[in-house]
Amino acid sequence: MTTFPIYLAGEFCTTAQSLAVISPYSGQCVYQTYSAGIAEFEIAVQAAQAVQAELAVMPVYQRYQILQNIAAGILAQREAFALIMAREAAKPYTTALAEVERAAQTFLIAAEEAKRLPGEVLSIDWHVSAANKQAIVKYFPVGLVAGISPFNFPLNLVAHKLAPAIAAGCPMVLKPASKTPISALLLAKVIAEAGLPGGALSVLPMDRQVGNLLVTDSRFNLLSFTGSPDIGWQMKRDAGKKKVVLELGGNAALLVDQDADLERVTSKAVIGAFAFAGQSCIHTQRIYVEAGLYPAFIELFCQKLARLKIGDPELAETEFSTMIDEANARRIEHWVDEAVADGARLLAGGQRQGALYSPTVLTNTRQTMKVCNLEAFAPIVVIEAYTDFKQAVTTINDSSFGLQAGLFSFDSRKINYAFQHLHVGGLIVNDVPTFRADHMPYGGVKDSGLGREGPKYAIFDMLEPKLLVTDHSNDGF
Amino acid sequence: MTTFPIYLAGEFCTTAQSLAVISPYSGQCVYQTYSAGIAEFEIAVQAAQAVQAELAVMPVYQRYQILQNIAAGILAQREAFALIMAREAAKPYTTALAEVERAAQTFLIAAEEAKRLPGEVLSIDWHVSAANKQAIVKYFPVGLVAGISPFNFPLNLVAHKLAPAIAAGCPMVLKPASKTPISALLLAKVIAEAGLPGGALSVLPMDRQVGNLLVTDSRFNLLSFTGSPDIGWQMKRDAGKKKVVLELGGNAALLVDQDADLERVTSKAVIGAFAFAGQSCIHTQRIYVEAGLYPAFIELFCQKLARLKIGDPELAETEFSTMIDEANARRIEHWVDEAVADGARLLAGGQRQGALYSPTVLTNTRQTMKVCNLEAFAPIVVIEAYTDFKQAVTTINDSSFGLQAGLFSFDSRKINYAFQHLHVGGLIVNDVPTFRADHMPYGGVKDSGLGREGPKYAIFDMLEPKLLVTDHSNDGF
Amino acid sequence: MTTFPIYLAGEFCTTAQSLAVISPYSGQCVYQTYSAGIAEFEIAVQAAQAVQAELAVMPVYQRYQILQNIAAGILAQREAFALIMAREAAKPYTTALAEVERAAQTFLIAAEEAKRLPGEVLSIDWHVSAANKQAIVKYFPVGLVAGISPFNFPLNLVAHKLAPAIAAGCPMVLKPASKTPISALLLAKVIAEAGLPGGALSVLPMDRQVGNLLVTDSRFNLLSFTGSPDIGWQMKRDAGKKKVVLELGGNAALLVDQDADLERVTSKAVIGAFAFAGQSCIHTQRIYVEAGLYPAFIELFCQKLARLKIGDPELAETEFSTMIDEANARRIEHWVDEAVADGARLLAGGQRQGALYSPTVLTNTRQTMKVCNLEAFAPIVVIEAYTDFKQAVTTINDSSFGLQAGLFSFDSRKINYAFQHLHVGGLIVNDVPTFRADHMPYGGVKDSGLGREGPKYAIFDMLEPKLLVTDHSNDGF
Amino acid sequence: MTTFPIYLAGEFCTTAQSLAVISPYSGQCVYQTYSAGIAEFEIAVQAAQAVQAELAVMPVYQRYQILQNIAAGILAQREAFALIMAREAAKPYTTALAEVERAAQTFLIAAEEAKRLPGEVLSIDWHVSAANKQAIVKYFPVGLVAGISPFNFPLNLVAHKLAPAIAAGCPMVLKPASKTPISALLLAKVIAEAGLPGGALSVLPMDRQVGNLLVTDSRFNLLSFTGSPDIGWQMKRDAGKKKVVLELGGNAALLVDQDADLERVTSKAVIGAFAFAGQSCIHTQRIYVEAGLYPAFIELFCQKLARLKIGDPELAETEFSTMIDEANARRIEHWVDEAVADGARLLAGGQRQGALYSPTVLTNTRQTMKVCNLEAFAPIVVIEAYTDFKQAVTTINDSSFGLQAGLFSFDSRKINYAFQHLHVGGLIVNDVPTFRADHMPYGGVKDSGLGREGPKYAIFDMLEPKLLVTDHSNDGF
Repeated sequence: MTTFPIYLAGEFCTTAQSLAVISPYSGQCVYQTYSAGIAEFEIAVQAAQAVQAELAVMPVYQRYQILQNIAAGILAQREAFALIMAREAAKPYTTALAEVERAAQTFLIAAEEAKRLPGEVLSIDWHVSAANKQAIVKYFPVGLVAGISPFNFPLNLVAHKLAPAIAAGCPMVLKPASKTPISALLLAKVIAEAGLPGGALSVLPMDRQVGNLLVTDSRFNLLSFTGSPDIGWQMKRDAGKKKVVLELGGNAALLVDQDADLERVTSKAVIGAFAFAGQSCIHTQRIYVEAGLYPAFIELFCQKLARLKIGDPELAETEFSTMIDEANARRIEHWVDEAVADGARLLAGGQRQGALYSPTVLTNTRQTMKVCNLEAFAPIVVIEAYTDFKQAVTTINDSSFGLQAGLFSFDSRKINYAFQHLHVGGLIVNDVPTFRADHMPYGGVKDSGLGREGPKYAIFDMLEPKLLVTDHSNDGF
Repeated sequence: MTTFPIYLAGEFCTTAQSLAVISPYSGQCVYQTYSAGIAEFEIAVQAAQAVQAELAVMPVYQRYQILQNIAAGILAQREAFALIMAREAAKPYTTALAEVERAAQTFLIAAEEAKRLPGEVLSIDWHVSAANKQAIVKYFPVGLVAGISPFNFPLNLVAHKLAPAIAAGCPMVLKPASKTPISALLLAKVIAEAGLPGGALSVLPMDRQVGNLLVTDSRFNLLSFTGSPDIGWQMKRDAGKKKVVLELGGNAALLVDQDADLERVTSKAVIGAFAFAGQSCIHTQRIYVEAGLYPAFIELFCQKLARLKIGDPELAETEFSTMIDEANARRIEHWVDEAVADGARLLAGGQRQGALYSPTVLTNTRQTMKVCNLEAFAPIVVIEAYTDFKQAVTTINDSSFGLQAGLFSFDSRKINYAFQHLHVGGLIVNDVPTFRADHMPYGGVKDSGLGREGPKYAIFDMLEPKLLVTDHSNDGF
Repeated sequence: MTTFPIYLAGEFCTTAQSLAVISPYSGQCVYQTYSAGIAEFEIAVQAAQAVQAELAVMPVYQRYQILQNIAAGILAQREAFALIMAREAAKPYTTALAEVERAAQTFLIAAEEAKRLPGEVLSIDWHVSAANKQAIVKYFPVGLVAGISPFNFPLNLVAHKLAPAIAAGCPMVLKPASKTPISALLLAKVIAEAGLPGGALSVLPMDRQVGNLLVTDSRFNLLSFTGSPDIGWQMKRDAGKKKVVLELGGNAALLVDQDADLERVTSKAVIGAFAFAGQSCIHTQRIYVEAGLYPAFIELFCQKLARLKIGDPELAETEFSTMIDEANARRIEHWVDEAVADGARLLAGGQRQGALYSPTVLTNTRQTMKVCNLEAFAPIVVIEAYTDFKQAVTTINDSSFGLQAGLFSFDSRKINYAFQHLHVGGLIVNDVPTFRADHMPYGGVKDSGLGREGPKYAIFDMLEPKLLVTDHSNDGF
Repeated sequence: MTTFPIYLAGEFCTTAQSLAVISPYSGQCVYQTYSAGIAEFEIAVQAAQAVQAELAVMPVYQRYQILQNIAAGILAQREAFALIMAREAAKPYTTALAEVERAAQTFLIAAEEAKRLPGEVLSIDWHVSAANKQAIVKYFPVGLVAGISPFNFPLNLVAHKLAPAIAAGCPMVLKPASKTPISALLLAKVIAEAGLPGGALSVLPMDRQVGNLLVTDSRFNLLSFTGSPDIGWQMKRDAGKKKVVLELGGNAALLVDQDADLERVTSKAVIGAFAFAGQSCIHTQRIYVEAGLYPAFIELFCQKLARLKIGDPELAETEFSTMIDEANARRIEHWVDEAVADGARLLAGGQRQGALYSPTVLTNTRQTMKVCNLEAFAPIVVIEAYTDFKQAVTTINDSSFGLQAGLFSFDSRKINYAFQHLHVGGLIVNDVPTFRADHMPYGGVKDSGLGREGPKYAIFDMLEPKLLVTDHSNDGF
């Protein structure tokens, strides 16, 4: 079993507090690493402060090269990263490989965006009082950034914090998810050889108490958190004066209208619902199908669901495996049982075996049930029929979340209606709401979060505009 | 009968060469003005050169105020402008009033755009060789602009030349159409009191020989021409080193697909086809109707056409009147007769009385006929049925022009297909191709022109970027 | 004495709780109005919710027209507004007139920006997995906005909240400063006739307890506060899930380098230091003068200070009058006395008479004194000599605030150094830090706030991006 | 001696007309290739037309990959490219190596820009007549592009044509300079393996008569020419309806003001004046030095000039070698002799040996002399003293060219004055005018050209905007 040191201000080191990483699939301890304590946290922050000025003036070509080096370094260890994710997160190997590619993309996109930081020439002489003035706006790094990332994309959601910070010129202290810290630590190894100044990054697994310093310590200027809604919103309250970006959960819905090609739609919907056991913020949790198509949709969907290859996440052919832990599997089991007791019909799945919860389909639900109303983050999907398109849009909006939605339709009026009225961060037409391109603006409204990720947008949050006005009325020489 | 002096470098004056303006409707001389000769041209150019530096540094708030003053001045003489257009162009009074409003809008939009001239902060340190450099790009007036405008929008198409020039800080010599110079000269009166420095504008009716100096004189840095294709393209050849922007003709087509609401479509199509006797660059000249709808479309269209109020352009209720002159009416009469002789069917119209050519509908045409293939600029429309949508798109593209097209459809696939494949400057979905908003980018591909108008885009053409790179590697002090 | 009703969801009304407005100059009650209670607050919020959907789809031309109407309405009552400010805030009449003009500008700029809300066409096919997808991003109103504005610009800082909200399509409940609510209520009268739907705006004076509901009520999606730092940062903590924009205080510094024209600089610096008795966020509180110039600077500055016309704010010639209340005058008296006791030298002023505190100059201070370190918001200025330019920059940065700074220099190296290193929101070169153009991005770093105002930037904060991805891989028809 | 086939529509082939490439240094034939005739030209154009539609819809990720592949392919043959340039152009090997790096950069930048093609969401409802309309603008490839490139950067100026065309989705027929076609043909080999569809590119050496078809053939939509002014402007006249971009010559000037660090300035100026024997569009041809510095400047400059390593371009240490041919060396010899006869003083150089013309310095010139007034494109520099800064700016502007200028000064007033008043495409402050970063907007005003290069700007020229307006007033369903 490999032991990974933590990455503290440019150095790999150990602490007194070891941390065992357990495979959700085997239940075995598969890796060992360490928890950072207050002492390490303090070293990380001070090192970040010390390197801040150097990062702020680092020329673009160096930021670009570092980010490119990281992208290349990730690809060079493609299989190693995928294997780690299969082990620490029970992410099926092939799915994990795709995430590795995406993480490399994320760094590469950030490299390109580092060349294109915003900046404006501003005409300022709109009034006689500014007749001889000129102005520009440039953007400078916001300062220290605290990053907290979740277990479900242990590599790419770390990349979405780190890559923008490097592009923007901000030092970062990152707390990876305690259940899946190893991907982030291998990434730290790649970064350690990429040319980033020591101190610009620390990757520190921490317990919640120490980790909370990332939220409360006033030396950080920005907190970027991806994780569960309750924790995220509490962080906003505790964050003091710093800026806060939150990427929280959702209960994404898909609307399938009457002109849909069911063969295509159901293939995509099964992936949207069950990829990585539904443990994605944009997991397809609710599907609303036009009533005439509903029976055929259900049939096809359940057929395809039945073909999912369930098994060991380390095998390339596995499509579906265990959830992150048994506690979560028990939680979703309870939600489903409660829904069924309350009148919902179980069309598939519903069984649990340890941390494995089988791909589950419910219908005849009510919006007030937890399976509809809360974020499932589990391999379940609710499928209901609708007769009135606008009513279906209203139903989707009847949720405290608003991350993404999907719509299958070729009717430009319905597409326009849905885009105007769905209260979400993104609408995916003719695909499932589970679609994400790493460069797009990604994030939600309502309880789903605050701000947008995607390197260009995350970089913008990590910058502070500074205006330069120059008066030339006395320019004689 | 009123005599209007010409506007020469900030002064109103007369010349030895008087110019009579004839009403296309009454055949009477309704106004008198003067043709500028080479001497006046030379004064105009030298005055423009003399004021160039002053305009270039004029603060934004002054440009803004001048343009706002002009917009207000136009509205204050709303009826006077409309009456002039009714008389000199036979533009129905109510149609002319709408043009006055639009011309005021055009100046107002340019005023707003003057505050928002482009400018960029450019990161330049993408390579070690530029490690300590910073850069910005600012935009400066291109220099003297020559403008030549057509008869069909005697006020607003002058506005589309002048307003951007003032916003950009360029002096302009403008040649209005010889048949309709009075609108432009009344506009000059408004401008003369708006605060623009003398010399920044001359409005000079000229014969073709003198006017051609606007094309060939190397002291102009940009030629902006709106008019007929043959003349425009010849100007491009003769223009020497100056930049050239051409807004030429078209034979705009409308595609009416199966889900269209015929009541709504035909109402709009009649306007598209016959407003100002079809004398618009985006006149709806060709209509392709899905075969199933074709009979009903024809019937409704011809019913509505029959209700058009034909008569004296000075009357508010008149919707349709004479063409610009009898020569053009005879030309279109000849084209239609030729088409009919060649197998086309006349569904309505086809009569001429002096300069009045009745609203005319043809079908059973071939794309090689002049009525399909050339720019009609007359109150005729060709209506044909189609069965294959993609083939209809191909038919529309089978033209040397590519200005705008229209499409009635709610099918997102067809809308997307049309947008990808129609070779035009603009596609108007669920409206006729005759739609123009004054701030939108307007212009065509193929023989329809070069560049786009609309204040923002015209201003951009009238500016020249200048890069400022500053090296800070030796900045110690 | 006039009584002003409050503006509740489109209606003017009274409440049980009357509110007396006292002139800081005369100490007399000059106006009466009312405090809104919880009942009125609730009506305002529900009306805002009810009108939200209507505002969101209001076409641009209507938003534009409403904002233009307001700008015109303000100018039509120019003197009335100025008089109110002279009375309720003791703002000298001529200074107040200038603020009226600026408030009209702020609405006009917002009108123009309403036409130019952001929007992006996004190429999304950067990876084979998105090969047939297209994307756009549009921006939608964020929802209900709570606005809280301060006493020092009782009209224009209300405009900076309201105008962007109307442009963005957001309903707003505004709490004006309790000492100066009348300007805002007269503005409400102007707005009531401008065409804005009832419910889109309530202007409600409130006591702190009721007003705090603007912070804590979860039905608001954004809180925009301008006021004092402590209160602002506490609001951020209490704001729940809503977005928060804070424009707080500063202790703006001016750096006068060796090539400065002292005649020009001191004239501007006296205004920067003493306009509206220093009660501005960008009041010139600290001046650092190159040592060789220091004696001459002090002499000229004190000469010009001595010429300030002190007196009744209602008189056009008055340049300086009382502070907002005696409590604040006593506060600054105490700070100055404390500084002097601690070794500072008083070069001018230092006397208090009721709410009038005389224009005061201190030198020989230390950065730890309250007069240097805190926000004075009073007519005092600290003037010190420096010998090392970089050290002077460091001294300016040695503050918890970072709003704006000024620099007089023609040395491009020093200008660049100051721009790179001053930790502020804006640097004004060759003018005082007290400069603000209403359209520029305005706001600070560190304790000075969060976000930027200026219509374009405030509007952006009041919008939420929504992504539309459309997949065309199945587009056959 | 290697023979290189030409690259015709995806295939390498030979023609009946062989073309010998002569080394300017040795006078020997160093390579052989072929001239394309009308038959090959016709094949190239038809293949370009055939592939046009495929290129237009090629997803971004493919364009990106192809451009990245080319960049990598260039770097993989770094030495081969440099050697070819040393041989065919007498470009010193080390200088040539730097050009290879830049060419790779140019493709890489274009790859990144391919992801960021322009596009706008446009609010269109500025008037009640467009109340229910929405709009976007997308950019589509302009069509076939004709490229003509010069001898002086045989690789990177080909890259500046080709890379944007691939990014924009336009097929291109490229005519490399007849004296230096081999670099372009080796590049064609790299491209042939990069994944670009056959037909998208032909690289065809041609004689002037055949090459002129690139100008006159109406099937091309854009002509992009880099070369000599007279030829370029004639092409504009002959180009018919197509768009024309011209990067022509200059006689770039450098202004050295009184606070300059002469050690640094003269080092840079010697490179600016003599790199690649002055055969660059932004060759430093004129230097104006503040009179007090003039004697010391001359002395230092001539000292450093004397140290230039002159010799065989294939040797890594060579800094200076022959001009492109003896005819050009004789031409510049004649110009210098004429100037001297007319009163100029020769401070260095002035000798010719075959195609080698020694690094030459003139002073005491008049602006009317050819060495000042025309584009030298040769290793000569004129150095004059000035006493009045503004007069020096006027002298620089007294030229028919306006490409770039340089200025050494730390005075922000002079920098601003020069930026406002120098009539050039770019001003380089504290460096020589010979600076170019490949991504910056590059090009001149007056006789120096039309348009700007740099991938982002060149791509923009190769795109045509298309507006999509959609009306939603009838959207009920």
